[in-house]
Amino acid sequence: MRTIKLLIEYDGTDFFGWQVQAEKRTIQGELETALRTLVNRDVNLIGAGRTDTGVHALGQVAHFKTDSELDVLTMCRGLNSLLPEDIVVHDVQEVPSDFHARFAAKSRRYQYRISRGRKALGRQFSWYLNYQLNVSTMAQAAELLRGKHDFRSFCSADTETRDYTCTLFNIKWASENNTLTLEVEADRFLQHMVRTIVGTLIEIGRGRKDPSDVNTILQAQDRRKAGPTAPAQGLCLMEVTY
Amino acid sequence: MRTIKLLIEYDGTDFFGWQVQAEKRTIQGELETALRTLVNRDVNLIGAGRTDTGVHALGQVAHFKTDSELDVLTMCRGLNSLLPEDIVVHDVQEVPSDFHARFAAKSRRYQYRISRGRKALGRQFSWYLNYQLNVSTMAQAAELLRGKHDFRSFCSADTETRDYTCTLFNIKWASENNTLTLEVEADRFLQHMVRTIVGTLIEIGRGRKDPSDVNTILQAQDRRKAGPTAPAQGLCLMEVTY
Repeated sequence: MRTIKLLIEYDGTDFFGWQVQAEKRTIQGELETALRTLVNRDVNLIGAGRTDTGVHALGQVAHFKTDSELDVLTMCRGLNSLLPEDIVVHDVQEVPSDFHARFAAKSRRYQYRISRGRKALGRQFSWYLNYQLNVSTMAQAAELLRGKHDFRSFCSADTETRDYTCTLFNIKWASENNTLTLEVEADRFLQHMVRTIVGTLIEIGRGRKDPSDVNTILQAQDRRKAGPTAPAQGLCLMEVTY
Repeated sequence: MRTIKLLIEYDGTDFFGWQVQAEKRTIQGELETALRTLVNRDVNLIGAGRTDTGVHALGQVAHFKTDSELDVLTMCRGLNSLLPEDIVVHDVQEVPSDFHARFAAKSRRYQYRISRGRKALGRQFSWYLNYQLNVSTMAQAAELLRGKHDFRSFCSADTETRDYTCTLFNIKWASENNTLTLEVEADRFLQHMVRTIVGTLIEIGRGRKDPSDVNTILQAQDRRKAGPTAPAQGLCLMEVTY
């Protein structure tokens, strides 16, 4: 059996997230359907991260096992001709058999985009916020999240995880034109973690919380202490590193 | 009666173009509906240009006459709360009564975006072309179109215009990342003109036509001599100048 790694971009707008669900349009589901046609077998595709409904990806990675003898270029072209236009496969590689898209990943990098002006074009890819924000307190608070912490307070309460420890290698706001972007890279992310971080940092930027509250929230290990979950459409999985 | 000028952005993807048509979702139609609610009267909205189905705008301008006493800021907020999310009004101004969005315009500026890589995110805003293009011959040919010409060969054959003379103040290709953009500014544009210019320049970039063929095509005054009409989704009305 060969192990094949895919590099995938998708517009999450019209999907019920990554993971296969009965009767629902999902990214994994569409890819597995295309792969089944391509290699004439059922395929189990494993993604690096299960993005939620409405979340986008420029650099999702996934792998599958196959006995197909198709070369990787043919696979790539075949997949793109079979896939709907909101999923694009950018690269197909044959990798060593112990490669695992999820467990072998060293880090994931996400971007969350906030639009400071109302817009029609590209509105599906950012969260529109028209109130005043203190970007400097938002940056201070972000710095406090950097490093290894228990992120239970920033994790969806109904998640099944037991280990809430994540290491944030990088977390940084950038501002360009009318868009404010949070870039965040970590070894792993819990469910809704980036969106809850964003929701909390926005509370701080609005003056409803202090930057130092981030420490209290981390220590509480209680989802109710953090801010609201920011909407899915601003979030994009940029890169997975192995 | 007051004369009110609007600055409008829209995502043309889900519209049958600017102009009101029975039973079809159009930008003018949605705006007139919102205006009717806002000022409690039927409103006739006149746009600077009638963009086709699928064409976008970042800087469309339109005007209407009203006896409403609402201040312009209230109008702007009211319109944005009444409009669907794929239309945004960025500015509302009261202007002298002789202002006319269409006839007073000195120039219109359009952008046409060509994506050199397949993509999922933002695919609605560019034309994806994966074949080799000679950008240098495309630039040479664009230069030949600059200035005052009869553009009948670059105009939809079933148009009702009698005057085919337009002056191109500027026409230029720019390349950034994986996107090739034609920026073009003229006193006026004929129906499908930018898209036919793009389709023709692409024929030249592919080596199917020579740059100098542009002169022959202009002289022919015959739509059949030019290249195909490029798809609508790559086109965006950027600015109207008065």
